Amino acid sequence: MRESLVAAAFQLFVERGYEQTTVDDIVALAGVGRRSFFRYFPSKEDVVFPDHEGCLTRMTAFLGESGPGHEPVERVCDAARLVLRMYAENPAFSVQRYRLTRKVPGLRTYELSVVWRYERALAEYLRGRFSGRPDGTLRADVIAAAVVAAHNNGLRSWLRADGRGDASAAVDHALAHVQRVFAPERNPVADGTGGAHAAWNGGEDDDDVVVVVSRRGAPLWRVVQEIETTLGRGPA
Amino acid sequence: MRESLVAAAFQLFVERGYEQTTVDDIVALAGVGRRSFFRYFPSKEDVVFPDHEGCLTRMTAFLGESGPGHEPVERVCDAARLVLRMYAENPAFSVQRYRLTRKVPGLRTYELSVVWRYERALAEYLRGRFSGRPDGTLRADVIAAAVVAAHNNGLRSWLRADGRGDASAAVDHALAHVQRVFAPERNPVADGTGGAHAAWNGGEDDDDVVVVVSRRGAPLWRVVQEIETTLGRGPA
Repeated sequence: MRESLVAAAFQLFVERGYEQTTVDDIVALAGVGRRSFFRYFPSKEDVVFPDHEGCLTRMTAFLGESGPGHEPVERVCDAARLVLRMYAENPAFSVQRYRLTRKVPGLRTYELSVVWRYERALAEYLRGRFSGRPDGTLRADVIAAAVVAAHNNGLRSWLRADGRGDASAAVDHALAHVQRVFAPERNPVADGTGGAHAAWNGGEDDDDVVVVVSRRGAPLWRVVQEIETTLGRGPA
Repeated sequence: MRESLVAAAFQLFVERGYEQTTVDDIVALAGVGRRSFFRYFPSKEDVVFPDHEGCLTRMTAFLGESGPGHEPVERVCDAARLVLRMYAENPAFSVQRYRLTRKVPGLRTYELSVVWRYERALAEYLRGRFSGRPDGTLRADVIAAAVVAAHNNGLRSWLRADGRGDASAAVDHALAHVQRVFAPERNPVADGTGGAHAAWNGGEDDDDVVVVVSRRGAPLWRVVQEIETTLGRGPA
């Protein structure tokens, strides 16, 4: 029932345009009554985004199941991947909807409010993880916004290519950028630690990145010492 | 005329509530005709945000005047400060509107679409500055979103304090966080530069931050050499 209403709606939106299609037209094509439509969708706009409520519920549950061992930035990136999966599961429908939302300003606004709810869910989780830390809510809000922007950048490039190619690869690439920018080893700068401080990402790979952060005024020997300690080597 | 319509509208919104106020009520209190109202505002929602169009125009002009010498992240932070100034110029009105938008979902959605237009203006500027660079549009979108999130975090904390305190200080603090995260010297990681690479932010202040990025496999002498070159000092 729900699926046939969505299918009927999109068939009419494509044929006649969104504005020219009424709920009566949709229920007539689907062969059901008006009350059935409104049982599933509060308004005509909602039939365009039939799966976001379910996805928001899944995302909230996913974040709620997080443990203290989950790296927070990685966790919100994984949460964003749940949204991508929803789009990628049905490329033809996602591309059709993308074209529709670009043409109808009211749908674009509706979509912005959906995106905002995803962003708030990510930010709420991060605020919890960063609570008590300096600038915890600020960092949470900025990271949530960056994750959503990166996700949407990857998603849009896939949608603009008519859903061809690998949606996951595009979004993974974008989210990896955000993870690099906000990776835990970069926090010493954000925390304003004085003096020299070195950190690394803990892996054993030869391509691991070492970041050294220092006040410009710190003596060079302190910087070198910190690097040596971090790399686990003696003096050069 | 325009100001008196806004004043009349807000007086009624506070007294009766937004939904219960009609355009007829507003023009009656302001002592003008309906046509005058619609000459200034396309809809009742627009009278709640009378200054955003002008601010968007100023922001676009400001970004358009940028030269190649402007550091891009700093420039978009300064552009965001134009929005703050609009709010800070009239604290009582801004606080009243903040309370209204939190109560009326339709206004919240309207505001999201305004915020989205600011974000697009910042992203468009950054896309131009980063064009031809690896991941230029991705970086532009992520930085624009981060700047808007930081600005709004600072702005909201001031609005929640009923417009008391220093709005600029709250937003400057939030934007400084974003500038630290996305400062030019951090780009070598994002660009995936191999080997050792050092950069600094070019100032003379003792608190300047030096960031050294290196592959973990890079020889220590190369890292130290790079630091020395960057700091402009000889061997320790």
